[in-house]
Amino acid sequence: MTKERFLNIRCQTERICESLQPEDVSAQPAEFVSPPKWHLAHTTWFFEQFVLSSHKQNYKVFHKDFSYFFNSYYNTVGNRVVRANRGTMTRPTLHEVLEYRGYVNKKMAEFLDEIIEPKVYETIEIGLQHEQQHQELLIYDIKYIFGIQPTFPVLDYTIDLKKEDTQQDFVSIPEGVYNIGHQNMDFCWDNELGSHKVYLHQYEISNRLVTNAEYLQFMESGGYTDFNLWHADGWDFIQKHNIKAPLYWYQDEGKWKQYTLQGLKQLDKALPVSHISLYEAFAFAQWNGMRLPTEQEWEVASSYINYGQLWEWTNSAYLPYPNFHKPDGALGEYNGKFMINQMVLRGGSIASPANHVRHTYRNFFQPEMRWLFSGIRLVK
Amino acid sequence: MTKERFLNIRCQTERICESLQPEDVSAQPAEFVSPPKWHLAHTTWFFEQFVLSSHKQNYKVFHKDFSYFFNSYYNTVGNRVVRANRGTMTRPTLHEVLEYRGYVNKKMAEFLDEIIEPKVYETIEIGLQHEQQHQELLIYDIKYIFGIQPTFPVLDYTIDLKKEDTQQDFVSIPEGVYNIGHQNMDFCWDNELGSHKVYLHQYEISNRLVTNAEYLQFMESGGYTDFNLWHADGWDFIQKHNIKAPLYWYQDEGKWKQYTLQGLKQLDKALPVSHISLYEAFAFAQWNGMRLPTEQEWEVASSYINYGQLWEWTNSAYLPYPNFHKPDGALGEYNGKFMINQMVLRGGSIASPANHVRHTYRNFFQPEMRWLFSGIRLVK
Amino acid sequence: MTKERFLNIRCQTERICESLQPEDVSAQPAEFVSPPKWHLAHTTWFFEQFVLSSHKQNYKVFHKDFSYFFNSYYNTVGNRVVRANRGTMTRPTLHEVLEYRGYVNKKMAEFLDEIIEPKVYETIEIGLQHEQQHQELLIYDIKYIFGIQPTFPVLDYTIDLKKEDTQQDFVSIPEGVYNIGHQNMDFCWDNELGSHKVYLHQYEISNRLVTNAEYLQFMESGGYTDFNLWHADGWDFIQKHNIKAPLYWYQDEGKWKQYTLQGLKQLDKALPVSHISLYEAFAFAQWNGMRLPTEQEWEVASSYINYGQLWEWTNSAYLPYPNFHKPDGALGEYNGKFMINQMVLRGGSIASPANHVRHTYRNFFQPEMRWLFSGIRLVK
Amino acid sequence: MTKERFLNIRCQTERICESLQPEDVSAQPAEFVSPPKWHLAHTTWFFEQFVLSSHKQNYKVFHKDFSYFFNSYYNTVGNRVVRANRGTMTRPTLHEVLEYRGYVNKKMAEFLDEIIEPKVYETIEIGLQHEQQHQELLIYDIKYIFGIQPTFPVLDYTIDLKKEDTQQDFVSIPEGVYNIGHQNMDFCWDNELGSHKVYLHQYEISNRLVTNAEYLQFMESGGYTDFNLWHADGWDFIQKHNIKAPLYWYQDEGKWKQYTLQGLKQLDKALPVSHISLYEAFAFAQWNGMRLPTEQEWEVASSYINYGQLWEWTNSAYLPYPNFHKPDGALGEYNGKFMINQMVLRGGSIASPANHVRHTYRNFFQPEMRWLFSGIRLVK
Repeated sequence: MTKERFLNIRCQTERICESLQPEDVSAQPAEFVSPPKWHLAHTTWFFEQFVLSSHKQNYKVFHKDFSYFFNSYYNTVGNRVVRANRGTMTRPTLHEVLEYRGYVNKKMAEFLDEIIEPKVYETIEIGLQHEQQHQELLIYDIKYIFGIQPTFPVLDYTIDLKKEDTQQDFVSIPEGVYNIGHQNMDFCWDNELGSHKVYLHQYEISNRLVTNAEYLQFMESGGYTDFNLWHADGWDFIQKHNIKAPLYWYQDEGKWKQYTLQGLKQLDKALPVSHISLYEAFAFAQWNGMRLPTEQEWEVASSYINYGQLWEWTNSAYLPYPNFHKPDGALGEYNGKFMINQMVLRGGSIASPANHVRHTYRNFFQPEMRWLFSGIRLVK
Repeated sequence: MTKERFLNIRCQTERICESLQPEDVSAQPAEFVSPPKWHLAHTTWFFEQFVLSSHKQNYKVFHKDFSYFFNSYYNTVGNRVVRANRGTMTRPTLHEVLEYRGYVNKKMAEFLDEIIEPKVYETIEIGLQHEQQHQELLIYDIKYIFGIQPTFPVLDYTIDLKKEDTQQDFVSIPEGVYNIGHQNMDFCWDNELGSHKVYLHQYEISNRLVTNAEYLQFMESGGYTDFNLWHADGWDFIQKHNIKAPLYWYQDEGKWKQYTLQGLKQLDKALPVSHISLYEAFAFAQWNGMRLPTEQEWEVASSYINYGQLWEWTNSAYLPYPNFHKPDGALGEYNGKFMINQMVLRGGSIASPANHVRHTYRNFFQPEMRWLFSGIRLVK
Repeated sequence: MTKERFLNIRCQTERICESLQPEDVSAQPAEFVSPPKWHLAHTTWFFEQFVLSSHKQNYKVFHKDFSYFFNSYYNTVGNRVVRANRGTMTRPTLHEVLEYRGYVNKKMAEFLDEIIEPKVYETIEIGLQHEQQHQELLIYDIKYIFGIQPTFPVLDYTIDLKKEDTQQDFVSIPEGVYNIGHQNMDFCWDNELGSHKVYLHQYEISNRLVTNAEYLQFMESGGYTDFNLWHADGWDFIQKHNIKAPLYWYQDEGKWKQYTLQGLKQLDKALPVSHISLYEAFAFAQWNGMRLPTEQEWEVASSYINYGQLWEWTNSAYLPYPNFHKPDGALGEYNGKFMINQMVLRGGSIASPANHVRHTYRNFFQPEMRWLFSGIRLVK
Repeated sequence: MTKERFLNIRCQTERICESLQPEDVSAQPAEFVSPPKWHLAHTTWFFEQFVLSSHKQNYKVFHKDFSYFFNSYYNTVGNRVVRANRGTMTRPTLHEVLEYRGYVNKKMAEFLDEIIEPKVYETIEIGLQHEQQHQELLIYDIKYIFGIQPTFPVLDYTIDLKKEDTQQDFVSIPEGVYNIGHQNMDFCWDNELGSHKVYLHQYEISNRLVTNAEYLQFMESGGYTDFNLWHADGWDFIQKHNIKAPLYWYQDEGKWKQYTLQGLKQLDKALPVSHISLYEAFAFAQWNGMRLPTEQEWEVASSYINYGQLWEWTNSAYLPYPNFHKPDGALGEYNGKFMINQMVLRGGSIASPANHVRHTYRNFFQPEMRWLFSGIRLVK
């Protein structure tokens, strides 16, 4: 861990928010969205709470109430602002939150010059990985805040999807016992451990993601109106919310447009389809006579496919690996308690920090979520 | 109508918002609250829509979409942003909205130098009265936005309740036929017309409002736990929301504090009790063996009492006067369509513009509303 | 009070339910509906609780838990089954409830042979009036239980609307002071007292109710799609529930049918329109360029008009008369606590017991209610 | 398939309902409960719809509307009554539904004497298995209908839990490749196919279920108040519904009682704990330092353990086996569309028909469900 790495990652969070207006940063248009200001503060609170207050001599907190304001799920650490109410906290202002960031960065820089115990290094590393996760969530949340407004604002931060290969090939993976899980000394989350064996039956996996062109075909052939293609819960979901297209698609005089962080654009059919729920991914695969991979199939095939454009829905529920152990202390809440009612996505996205795109990374969301950068890869 | 009066009223709206931060102006913590930015824009839209666009030659609207963004209830004029979603519109920014205000003010000032038809003068007058109503709502909304945040911010805008008279006297009004409704040539709302006769039976009305001291007695003697004192709907309301004190009262180590626009303060027992629902006003009167006045009783007694500190709940439903006529056109929507499910308040408050405190003014809200500056006057 | 009168009224309740199946009697398809079995038991509980247990020597209750099961709103008397859950109580069975009725009738008959204090006679009278109110509610509830089922069952109990006069005349009532409220020695409810004076301005009132033919014209000319005709709350109500016609109207191959207690029938255009909310009554009047009467206008005009087919919505909120006094004790809860958020209906209906049709009777419901036997009379 | 087997199974459904009153059979106190009458009719509809109407010459349906009333999830076959409204259909009566059963039984008996194609035999077999599943659901639903009523009725139908072994032993299963899934020629559901290999790591599994005594220890040591033991969703669930004990446990003067189908009884500590959600099972295991088995671990160990008292929650999500194929036609909807948001239970219960207790059977419910006969087996 160098000070430089620490400050680079911290700086990147602010870079993402640079073109936001103060009005933008406390908006919470849906319960699953957190206001950008909250991300800026919460990631900072992590270092104050778990590093500086616990380990730096004579550390004076920036503001005595911030621990209460910016805690997220860490029940162990005390009361917290209920998630659904984050959007009503207009104070502290963006300016004050940026001061908070500056203060904690300065103190952390001092601290990183001291001699630090390995255990504390580990916590700082987790704090940085945690901050990078929030960088990705920031992009989801900003896109949602902007994408449902009639003004369709532009974010000055470039992330672009690339066209998928025109040619679709299927890689065949033979039956057998495979190793799954993180196996080297690099950082990984607790949920990627421990390494274990699985038995896979033969399968073939696509070299590329499903495109907007293919998804349009599904839509035009009545995909959203044929209940036979859908999970029962998925069918209820699209009925209840009157869903007929991916999130951020808008029909304008008969033509499909798509909100991107660069504004409202004509739909580019060569790009991979994005912002779809697991339910939609599943229905598309059913319509196509194929299926989604399991997370083990995906991991074993990962060296034969290109990934990293969009998180790829798998048909695996988010559950502990054999011999999963919950870490001790407050950080032990991190992953284990979410291992129910969610599905695994693999592969990383253009919104992911580079070092979060690895073949063992297990991302997870509820099957109805659409605001993440999600896509579809088929297996047969 | 002088240009000066026009600009003074417009300027006052901005004065109220002067100490708000951009983060504060798009918050909408409850459906009945509108973001301050929306008030700033909506009052401006009124002049653009009903005066400049309709009557000023070659007027060019400031922004083609603002009419869509900042319409409120005027179904006649086109689509509108649903009330509950106003808080998610972070753009246009406060800065842009203030530019919009400046642009429309400039154009209105030019227009006011022209020769204007009486009918248009009337519309401008309505626009100014409308803006003043929103000045009062702005104060309610800002107080709510601030008063539920853990930081309890301060607004740099002074409005203070005064102590009520220590001595309570009751004025006796004899039985007879009385005239009700607005009768001179000054401005009034459609709902104050037409003047008509009512028969009142003898009653006695208090010279002053109920105080915090008296309300505390009600609370301490179990007022919130004795269902016999409450309307059935009122009882359900306080159970459902777990209400045990007026809005903005917080108990801190056994002592009651009250959020004011100057921050969280010790409760001043000599001030009139404020921010109570009709349900609470009714239960208090029941407990006290008295009752609330009707709006006719209030109006007839108005010359014998001091009023203007807090809107006083009456036990009259908001309904049309005999021979009420809905004005033609979009402005006809103004009052008539709200004449159901609401109760009348009389007398004006410290948040009301001075010329809105008149004895015929009919304010109205749902009986559960508490964020307005409301109080209690007793009758026996 | 004779024993015969007591038993006749009690018997009538059972007569209404005679053709119900045991399966029908515990259904509660909406929160405002009570299961028929509950009405049968609750009216009986009234006599057990307020007469026999309190005044008959050595009275032994039929079952110790029935007081808990069949209390309604009388908070004073103890816990009660929450209204919304009445439909889940399948036991006691209909058979047991009828035994309960028989037991209490027998004991009451014995008691009526004793010498009874006047105060207790009053309570018995209230019990009978209360039972008759429930007879009317029973009919509303049975109609609702049957009218929303795909089988449209028939009730063997005849109540028929008659055609309205073809000719519409308007009776003119001159301006002046009038007496309002119950004034003779017959039974009345607390809310009809005390007699008092009102000043009315001149008005003209229709001799007959609005017909299905006239209401169809309103519908066909777009009445349900023109928001200018509606209260804001009324407009929201019909949007939310997708209401386009009165309750129990069903369109079948382009023709309107109406569920009646005799089954699904062709719509008879000469009958008065029924099962409409206040919102619809108000919108119809707006469309027609007229208005609804106030309850005072209705009462003063009552001797000049025919009434008793359908409860007639007035544009008066349900509020206490001057000098209204809440009776002491549990029965004091009867009316006063509902004096908020409801509108008055006058005139009685074909579902009302004959002695409940009187010109001072004040019925009241929330403005969105449609399952009562309601109609429209116009004023200009 | 013999006629006798057909009639025996059909008869058993009626046997379960024998002591129900007509009032009981249309109750639906929660959305996940179906009225007993609906089960009686729906299982009959299956044979009418998929066997008699499709394959029996000149078959005349019992009633033309029953197909509409008693369809469940089979979207393919036409409109259906929305699940949440089943409880409002008081007609057809229980008597009519029993006539319907008799009619269809008679026609099926005739049909079973004819020469039947194998494909149709298969459908009849599915119909019988389907009926048996509903026999189990009937018991869950009756217990729920009775268990939340203040009268706690008794069902005349004996199913009793037995005490668990006092001694707890753990069976050790070695690491290796195992076969999973149904492999012989007996009937099984589509979701038990196809047979496939899995790799399991070494584990130890308890010979018996967790007892009420053990569960009480968990409760008394604060299990329901320590969020560290719970899934985040589980914690929210118990907070929202204020859950502090298994379903049907009632505290009476400091002692725990439990509603059983024989009425309210003292809690028997030697019985296995029942009617717990997956969330509670998981929290209990966390508290105990162990975990729940996966469904594969359970299946492999099944020959070493006693099972069949209670369905045992596994920590496996309900997902398709490798090479799962959705059957063609309406019956294809049967299982596949539920393979999301549910967890697998294994082992059968005292409410299960004997032939439904097999080691490959995959039962599945949402993790919050408690009205099923569920229990806990631990793994370490």
